[in-house]
Amino acid sequence: MTCAASAAGPTLAVVAREAGVSVPTASKVVNGRDDVAPETRRRVNEVLDRLGYVRRRRSGPTGPHGMVDLVLSALDGPDAAVVRGVERAAHAAGLEVVVSSGRHLGRDRLDRLVARGTAGVLFHGDGPGTAQVAWLTRHRVPYVLVDPGEEPPPGTVWVGAADRAGGRAAAEHLLGLGHQRVAAVAGHAPGRAGSAWLAGWREALAAAGLRVRPEYVRRPGPDDPEACGGPGAPEGQAGALGRAGPGWARLRTLELLDLPEPPTAVCVGSDTWAPGVYGALAERGLRVPDDMAVVGYGDLPETRWAVPGLTTVRRPLDGMAAAALALLVRSAVGEPPDGLPVELPTELVVRSSTAPPPAAGRQAPGRRAPGQRYAAETW
Amino acid sequence: MTCAASAAGPTLAVVAREAGVSVPTASKVVNGRDDVAPETRRRVNEVLDRLGYVRRRRSGPTGPHGMVDLVLSALDGPDAAVVRGVERAAHAAGLEVVVSSGRHLGRDRLDRLVARGTAGVLFHGDGPGTAQVAWLTRHRVPYVLVDPGEEPPPGTVWVGAADRAGGRAAAEHLLGLGHQRVAAVAGHAPGRAGSAWLAGWREALAAAGLRVRPEYVRRPGPDDPEACGGPGAPEGQAGALGRAGPGWARLRTLELLDLPEPPTAVCVGSDTWAPGVYGALAERGLRVPDDMAVVGYGDLPETRWAVPGLTTVRRPLDGMAAAALALLVRSAVGEPPDGLPVELPTELVVRSSTAPPPAAGRQAPGRRAPGQRYAAETW
Repeated sequence: MTCAASAAGPTLAVVAREAGVSVPTASKVVNGRDDVAPETRRRVNEVLDRLGYVRRRRSGPTGPHGMVDLVLSALDGPDAAVVRGVERAAHAAGLEVVVSSGRHLGRDRLDRLVARGTAGVLFHGDGPGTAQVAWLTRHRVPYVLVDPGEEPPPGTVWVGAADRAGGRAAAEHLLGLGHQRVAAVAGHAPGRAGSAWLAGWREALAAAGLRVRPEYVRRPGPDDPEACGGPGAPEGQAGALGRAGPGWARLRTLELLDLPEPPTAVCVGSDTWAPGVYGALAERGLRVPDDMAVVGYGDLPETRWAVPGLTTVRRPLDGMAAAALALLVRSAVGEPPDGLPVELPTELVVRSSTAPPPAAGRQAPGRRAPGQRYAAETW
Repeated sequence: MTCAASAAGPTLAVVAREAGVSVPTASKVVNGRDDVAPETRRRVNEVLDRLGYVRRRRSGPTGPHGMVDLVLSALDGPDAAVVRGVERAAHAAGLEVVVSSGRHLGRDRLDRLVARGTAGVLFHGDGPGTAQVAWLTRHRVPYVLVDPGEEPPPGTVWVGAADRAGGRAAAEHLLGLGHQRVAAVAGHAPGRAGSAWLAGWREALAAAGLRVRPEYVRRPGPDDPEACGGPGAPEGQAGALGRAGPGWARLRTLELLDLPEPPTAVCVGSDTWAPGVYGALAERGLRVPDDMAVVGYGDLPETRWAVPGLTTVRRPLDGMAAAALALLVRSAVGEPPDGLPVELPTELVVRSSTAPPPAAGRQAPGRRAPGQRYAAETW
């Protein structure tokens, strides 16, 4: 999203004449002010769009009163990490952060945003819709996506995590412990990060010479309790890994346990689903990790709830947010990024939910210190 | 925090002359701009303070480009609920929300905040320090505290939850199930919400004619792992109920279990500490709720991790945030609130971590549906 210097276009006087209003009234509409009758606003906006009017930005994008906009989808736990990362990086760059919910980003809000000279917009979770993209592009407002839920259109600047490597690391950890029957509790099919994670999982199995059994890949179904966007889900359907509650993960895990040859380990596509997996195992009287090893994905703060502690793969959400802010600032000063997505590295965090499978030789439980990192080659 | 109409004070010309700088330079300092040498800024600020200069606010506080500032301490999960509540209420009031971390709220930031005509400031967790209060008062910037960690000075406008009633409801639920030996895993002594919660707990026991045993009240100690503000704690020490990790709660629970007459139920002062309680019980091979009933406090989203589901008391953080925004808007338009703290009601949420004590008669486990609400009088 480059921020070109300027472009000739109709003046406000032309717009006002065309819309049959005074210049001050047209100015009010352009500046997103409230004190304009809805019908007048509609008429002026129609002319502004038709003539391709480009709002003048009040100050330099990274000037003394620079502000950056952060648009969030769900405003839940993961969003807190994004706000933290953006705020910290913005403070270092001398920018203030205006936070808003994606559902409130209508035309009036966009008008205000340009009128006050935003340095640009960061979107977490759901990206901008078609109309918003057209608007941002027309007004040369740079924008960057943080961990977008779906694959953005080509040319979009975005920052994510190396989810393919992350999914591979999760599976490789289990394979290294001696597991051969490794299942995946994955998210909805079209998700960007989830697809990459699952590809990594497949890759690890293939590299170990294992057949990927279709019955070992489990996803939420449309009728599942608390599936994404369902009544039990938090507001919005944001975040790269979806927000499905643990209900469906419990059902899918029970199905895995009912297979003629159940897995001995399971990779879960998001930490948020792991409680469902733990719950299903507890229901059947199975212990983690002795009867089933579990690896999560994300390393969300709430994993501190897991007993035993959840082995997972950290996705640096705050780091993604900070990196996105840096890209935005570069765009705003006319140094657009190369358009390639930025993927921050993920990291395996070994806790207590993983151990060798029951069949393999195992040391006495007393000899393993809590939180000890497994070295695959010792098993 | 009233927002009085105006007050006579020195002009910028007087300030500039006194500081030996040009009026434009003094103006830059007043407006929080970056392009002033540090030593010059220091000198001008010294004169501004000495002469009691009051910055002119750029626009009406709830004017067309109104903004409100939200200052957060920790930017973790609970902060997400506050951002959500403030953003929603601010949008309805036509205001945009600037979010910043308390650690970044230095003088320069405060100058910028007034220069752009903030409608006021909301603080979540840690309130403003003495210097910040003096600054806000001098510049007639209204501010409201959301769920402050400590008791604010008299006259401060703040919104909290009815924590005394909440603590009472938690204990009464257990007493109603037949428990007579009810312990409290409480937070640090000076905490505002935690103190009210504990007072409610005591009140419930006294009303039931039970003696409050000192050994049943357990708190974090200075050497505890992950105690508030310790190395294991997340950044900041924000929020009414502190941010201590579950480590110390585990130790305190083990101590409770080692008592000659251990409790049969425990009230936990924050959901965030409940994993420590669950962990200690699991270590000793004790089951929740059959061997020990547990009631949390807060109803944080992460309680979805608890197996069995945590019975808790909901504190409406997003509602508190929205109420605080409403008070701020009233202050900003010259209708200051009466100065009395606003306390939103709490609500008992019964899940599966509570049951009658082992000694009392109990229905067969199979007859209780998961999530069934207990009626105290049936036991």
